[in-house]
Amino acid sequence: MNSYDIISKTKYGRELADEEIRWLVEGYVNGKIPDYQLSAWLMAVYFNSLSERETTALTLAMRDSGDVMDLSAIDGITIDKHSTGGVGDKTSLIIAPIVSASGVYVPKMSGRGLGHTGGTIDKLESIPGFKTELSFARFIEIVKKAGFSIISQSVDIVPADKKLYALRDTTATVDSIPLICSSIMSKKLAMGADCILLDVKLGSGAFMKTEESAKQLARAMVNTAVNSGKKCRAIITNMDEPLGDSIGNAIEIIEVIEILKGNKKGRLYELCIELSANMLEMAGKGNADECRRLAVEAISSGSAMEKLRLMIELQGGNPRIIDDYALLPQPKFSTDVLAQRSGYITEINSEEIGLTALRLGAGRVTKESEIDLSAGIKLNKSVGDYAESGEAIMTLYSSVESDFSEIADMARHAVTISEQASEKKPLIYDVVY
Amino acid sequence: MNSYDIISKTKYGRELADEEIRWLVEGYVNGKIPDYQLSAWLMAVYFNSLSERETTALTLAMRDSGDVMDLSAIDGITIDKHSTGGVGDKTSLIIAPIVSASGVYVPKMSGRGLGHTGGTIDKLESIPGFKTELSFARFIEIVKKAGFSIISQSVDIVPADKKLYALRDTTATVDSIPLICSSIMSKKLAMGADCILLDVKLGSGAFMKTEESAKQLARAMVNTAVNSGKKCRAIITNMDEPLGDSIGNAIEIIEVIEILKGNKKGRLYELCIELSANMLEMAGKGNADECRRLAVEAISSGSAMEKLRLMIELQGGNPRIIDDYALLPQPKFSTDVLAQRSGYITEINSEEIGLTALRLGAGRVTKESEIDLSAGIKLNKSVGDYAESGEAIMTLYSSVESDFSEIADMARHAVTISEQASEKKPLIYDVVY
Repeated sequence: MNSYDIISKTKYGRELADEEIRWLVEGYVNGKIPDYQLSAWLMAVYFNSLSERETTALTLAMRDSGDVMDLSAIDGITIDKHSTGGVGDKTSLIIAPIVSASGVYVPKMSGRGLGHTGGTIDKLESIPGFKTELSFARFIEIVKKAGFSIISQSVDIVPADKKLYALRDTTATVDSIPLICSSIMSKKLAMGADCILLDVKLGSGAFMKTEESAKQLARAMVNTAVNSGKKCRAIITNMDEPLGDSIGNAIEIIEVIEILKGNKKGRLYELCIELSANMLEMAGKGNADECRRLAVEAISSGSAMEKLRLMIELQGGNPRIIDDYALLPQPKFSTDVLAQRSGYITEINSEEIGLTALRLGAGRVTKESEIDLSAGIKLNKSVGDYAESGEAIMTLYSSVESDFSEIADMARHAVTISEQASEKKPLIYDVVY
Repeated sequence: MNSYDIISKTKYGRELADEEIRWLVEGYVNGKIPDYQLSAWLMAVYFNSLSERETTALTLAMRDSGDVMDLSAIDGITIDKHSTGGVGDKTSLIIAPIVSASGVYVPKMSGRGLGHTGGTIDKLESIPGFKTELSFARFIEIVKKAGFSIISQSVDIVPADKKLYALRDTTATVDSIPLICSSIMSKKLAMGADCILLDVKLGSGAFMKTEESAKQLARAMVNTAVNSGKKCRAIITNMDEPLGDSIGNAIEIIEVIEILKGNKKGRLYELCIELSANMLEMAGKGNADECRRLAVEAISSGSAMEKLRLMIELQGGNPRIIDDYALLPQPKFSTDVLAQRSGYITEINSEEIGLTALRLGAGRVTKESEIDLSAGIKLNKSVGDYAESGEAIMTLYSSVESDFSEIADMARHAVTISEQASEKKPLIYDVVY
């Protein structure tokens, strides 16, 4: 085998053998194959794509470049969940308590990542005392006791992805379905859960901008998981407007708690029930209707809330934040963004709201950036609502930025107010089995 | 400007500005842009090609990465010629004397190159005493006196091509029309001649295997030259069988002399007349018929032969080889390859004949290989001829290989003998202006 022939095959649209793909990934990770050959291959993959079999082989070769978790100590069905990422997406923190309340284990490792707001791990770290770096043994212990645990991803998981992603990021080869699929799924497979639920975001605030590309990615990921012996579903969900009314870190923890307390309904609640029900169904907890009822009851009975409380306690966090939000990081500065005319809200652009949150200090520009956990945005309106001229459509919070004038302009620009209400887009587009 | 955006543009099929292409080439040559970004861009070019304007911009940026020859000291029209390369192609050595005999100057720099046989420079070096490394001033002096001079290409010509070609060679991005065009034409433009004749080879022994791809390449090269202010034509010629009956180095010098003496006609002679006539026409020596007559007369009058004799003398070679071939390197060993059945020769596969010549020692496997200048193949038959079983269809020569059994098998395999004669393919497919 040699890398020239492998590049040529993909370039001419010929299928690679599994061993060739494994040889390529191993050779790249151990430094025997240079960056410049890999980047040429990646560009050929962008143009000619990979077959389902090739995508599975690539994913498994990447998975095997590092540690693969052994969850056999957990006596029961384990399930993992992944979202392709959206503005205000805190669903994992709501779903894990709901699902574990019905006896399904959710052992979850999560990344910090760059972006508009912190990742799930950063959001959790806004809880005083909360630890996200635990030993694997302690992680398993907490999953067994609380039904779920969320810790930060170990560096030994899929080193191939780290190296490949850095190369893709500088060679314009990120937006390729098989490459996105293998990047996500190699990490999910290394986590070792029996079932995987994928939330593929579609819309202005998502990586996937068209329904076709979202479906292609969903199909590729589900096939790869099933070919690797896992149960898997992908739900394609709307990301045209931010998810929920809170965007930030501590502010999103509050929204999570409000949902679990049963104080808040709406699109975020509906989505969490839908995702949870799908997870419970995959885990064999009944049919679709039964599983939806289980999810609803986990909130109405307070059992999901208690799961979160226990997990916070076991990971060293102060569980009193659940009853006293003032114990969370508090912003020093705030300002209201006012509607400049009366009318219906027809768009709240996720991307622009995300960039506003980043400017407020809620996210990371570089890996080294420090996050302002108190910073964020509280939306008072959602798409379809009516706003009076001069009414506060949102409030901006920050502890690092006190001059809001420019940022408020950005925020205002993200919201479109029209005389006519627009049609509301569906929350869920499709489920891929 | 940044290389990520440049890669993206080409990847999405958007045209690059001239300045972006120049920035990319300069950045790559001076080491500011890494190999892995260039190789991703090259692969994107393979898939999306480049526009005529982009191809010209790339060619000029590459040309300007090194020295550009100043031929203004030559008082008259200068013309250069390039062949995309074929087995037994010694046309430059025949054409340059013909054209210069009609008063058009041919200042030619040539490469050594890897391949089945040596390049024009290696062939000339089989003449005892012949020098191919001369100062630029001496080169110009010889062109003025003899009408032509052929020296080996200076290292300062188009360093960008050297670096890009090495990268293309390891990343499977060689076979792209705009990349082949810019590689060839950047060097031709750096040579500085007023007119350029391109001989694009088509067939089993050529890089271009289909008429369509040969025409595309010819069109791209002619457009690039014209856009750069040069006169240019491309002739698409047959390379299904070796050109002439001699393949090697010293043995090809003998064939050149035999043609110039008027002792030998046939396909090689016809091609040389055709190419010479096109060059003379571009140089303004009359219409097609007049120029063809000039070319024929240059041979029949002996004036072309005298041009070669003078040039050999001026470059330090022994001109007595013209009258006594025994002064050229002589092979120590030889063997005849016999026809194993009677019938018509329907194919002499150039590629396989070339590989046979390489095995005999006539070419270079690596840059460091030493060429056996005496090695080569003399064909006794050409396509369409009849051979009796047991008749010698060719003779193999070598001074480094004495055991011919395996090599003779290779040679025999290259020739197809059938009961029915096949249709002869045209010598010239097309002329692109």
